[in-house]
Amino acid sequence: MDRRSFLQTTAAAGVGVSLSPFVSVGQTRDASVSIGLIGVGSRGTSHLRGLLQREDVDIPAVCDTKSDNLTRAQDLVQQSGRARPEGYGDGDRAYRDLISRDDIDGVIVATPWLWHVPMAVEAMEEGKFVGLEVPAATTVEGCWELVRTAERTGSHCMFLENVCYRRDVMAVLKMVREGLFGEMIHCRCGYQHSLIPFLFNDNTSFGPGTGSVSSWRTEHYVKRNGDLYPTHGIGPVAHWLDINSGNRFERLTSTATKARGLHDHILEEGSDDHPKADVRFAQGDIVTSTITTANGESIVMTHDTSLPRPYSLGFRAQGTDGLWTVDNQSVHVEGRSPAHQWEDWERYQEEYDAELWTRYESEAEGAGHGGMDYFVRNAFVESIKQGVAPPIDVYDAATWSVLGPLSEQSIDQGGEPVEVPDFTDGRWMTADRSFDPDGAF
Amino acid sequence: MDRRSFLQTTAAAGVGVSLSPFVSVGQTRDASVSIGLIGVGSRGTSHLRGLLQREDVDIPAVCDTKSDNLTRAQDLVQQSGRARPEGYGDGDRAYRDLISRDDIDGVIVATPWLWHVPMAVEAMEEGKFVGLEVPAATTVEGCWELVRTAERTGSHCMFLENVCYRRDVMAVLKMVREGLFGEMIHCRCGYQHSLIPFLFNDNTSFGPGTGSVSSWRTEHYVKRNGDLYPTHGIGPVAHWLDINSGNRFERLTSTATKARGLHDHILEEGSDDHPKADVRFAQGDIVTSTITTANGESIVMTHDTSLPRPYSLGFRAQGTDGLWTVDNQSVHVEGRSPAHQWEDWERYQEEYDAELWTRYESEAEGAGHGGMDYFVRNAFVESIKQGVAPPIDVYDAATWSVLGPLSEQSIDQGGEPVEVPDFTDGRWMTADRSFDPDGAF
Repeated sequence: MDRRSFLQTTAAAGVGVSLSPFVSVGQTRDASVSIGLIGVGSRGTSHLRGLLQREDVDIPAVCDTKSDNLTRAQDLVQQSGRARPEGYGDGDRAYRDLISRDDIDGVIVATPWLWHVPMAVEAMEEGKFVGLEVPAATTVEGCWELVRTAERTGSHCMFLENVCYRRDVMAVLKMVREGLFGEMIHCRCGYQHSLIPFLFNDNTSFGPGTGSVSSWRTEHYVKRNGDLYPTHGIGPVAHWLDINSGNRFERLTSTATKARGLHDHILEEGSDDHPKADVRFAQGDIVTSTITTANGESIVMTHDTSLPRPYSLGFRAQGTDGLWTVDNQSVHVEGRSPAHQWEDWERYQEEYDAELWTRYESEAEGAGHGGMDYFVRNAFVESIKQGVAPPIDVYDAATWSVLGPLSEQSIDQGGEPVEVPDFTDGRWMTADRSFDPDGAF
Repeated sequence: MDRRSFLQTTAAAGVGVSLSPFVSVGQTRDASVSIGLIGVGSRGTSHLRGLLQREDVDIPAVCDTKSDNLTRAQDLVQQSGRARPEGYGDGDRAYRDLISRDDIDGVIVATPWLWHVPMAVEAMEEGKFVGLEVPAATTVEGCWELVRTAERTGSHCMFLENVCYRRDVMAVLKMVREGLFGEMIHCRCGYQHSLIPFLFNDNTSFGPGTGSVSSWRTEHYVKRNGDLYPTHGIGPVAHWLDINSGNRFERLTSTATKARGLHDHILEEGSDDHPKADVRFAQGDIVTSTITTANGESIVMTHDTSLPRPYSLGFRAQGTDGLWTVDNQSVHVEGRSPAHQWEDWERYQEEYDAELWTRYESEAEGAGHGGMDYFVRNAFVESIKQGVAPPIDVYDAATWSVLGPLSEQSIDQGGEPVEVPDFTDGRWMTADRSFDPDGAF
């Protein structure tokens, strides 16, 4: 079914017009789902542990090029009472043997960033329902490739952006949709998290063979200068502003500061002749991007990961009738709050708590990242089981992730505005919302 | 003495190289200073009351085109035990009679924005020491005219940016200068203040003859779209980043949201056929500007005045070793704060309190805007008395105020970066700091 005939069919059937051209509502699969994991390092193992808590998930295969990771994953599955899964780890292309298996419905990709696109693309080509870790891609072309592959193959790609399920941002989403803030005007977000403990192994070393994240992620800081990690911040904002369902990002300008944090850290913690003391990091310590939307809002997005600081995603949601800001845990709603004064967030969190959270609170406890991970995995599994498009889809993956490479372009051009591609080919104007805090998953 | 010979003389004399080409160190005047006020509306009257608290200030003349204002000001001076001042109010050019008086040392200009440049320029031409309210100018050319007039005439123009004297931002300045935050990387600031109660008279009307600020300021929201009021935010940031004394603003990009707040307010509060219901406001509700500096820092500046919200100037000062943010009243200093955690600001405020504040705390109490006004007036009066350049000078006035019209340009050009003029003609590289939290004033 091509895109046009799909839209006509669903419209005629009275079904909400999904952005996805290939959703098949009502087509359910077996009660259990079999999932393969590509990448069972820190993040992939966390997903694995979460999946093993469920009775409706089988894990027939796992893949990792590090044998330690692979063995740990196989042991974990076996210890859960399931059959020991097949392990694939013989070289960079071992994942191909996993995705070509007929007994796998879905694949979670939790590998270093540069592998996200080829692995997701090839898995979709094999007909698998992909769960893709963040960011989806690090280039504009990579984003397009994900979208085009999904459209061509009819396979789904759920973007595993867990922060969309954070309890407070979901409550804010309900407030936005119920109109408490009036018409939306402005949002802020960012990834403000000192990653120094992660970007170095043994405190100062990085590069191939130096542990986990330091073996690949730090290299992005050497070669790139932009918002390397936009989606934890922009995902929730995209939901508040109906991006891809009535709205879209139009343009972005980005600015980077000088790069000091990582270099200073090496000099302070290492010896004078430290082998990494001569490395010039391209990545500015703080990258600020301003994004405009078709509906006239603006968004300020921050990347701040190489300086010492407390963690904050820096959220702010503001409309004609009030605003919420995360850093002071406060809200102001015109007509309800005392004039010109903040109210504590707590009462609003209670009143607008997502039904998903009240329903699954006990399951979410201890599931990683404050429970968010439970929900994003649950949505992935349930979408496969119920044969429906995921609530966070390939268009979201592309639209949110592309802000990274676009910020690099803008910085490279001295802050020139850069147009954001429309991955939906115009369907953002009429597509229904797919993400629902009070929905089934 | 021209600029070159001034610089040589002061350098030879071992005197710090001031940015000002015409400072005459050590040339003291009489113990009392006579000051004329142009504009004795709300803001000018506040200055007048403050000046009348001092024994070293005479007020021989006041000027205002509104006779009520004029009479009130004359009464206030007389009630203080001084001679009733001459009042000038006969038409828009009445101020010329005030500034041409020989018995006036200084002039405070606190009039609607469009009058700031002509009044300050003409007062400087009459040899007066000008105290100029914010913003100094609303156009790039106006900023240049102030600087060129000061340089040509040798008259001083102090920019009365009171927030530079706010107790917390001065303590932060001390922390910055003592290196607590390491090398500075990033700052934030803004004017986030719901001005709806001021921009309308009787809740919904504005325009000539409709009261105080609503009679002229609201018109800027009809015709302009940019950061209309940058200096309360950018003044303190400029001090933290040594702007005009070793650093300078290089470039700015600005983004405006749609304009909803003021129009919605008229529709909600007025009748359907309200005479102002058809007014199209050009000013976007939220304007975000990103500024880069010669030393590689970035600044995010916000203008947010037409939506309901609690007041905040949104400050953030961040360096390689930590940061302060005003909205959560918290600070993090690497090596001193617990890793990745905030500390309460209070203890730092005490430890780094400006000597100016500990010295003049009792005088500042009740002086307006939490005491800041006392300090900015004191600096103005003392600079005249001691015959020295003011701590916030005409270059600061121009450099900070020009961000307003430049943001309009950038927005008009779809967010294109705009270069910030160097009003110091290169002397920003070598000029000494003029603002000192522990100084005499």
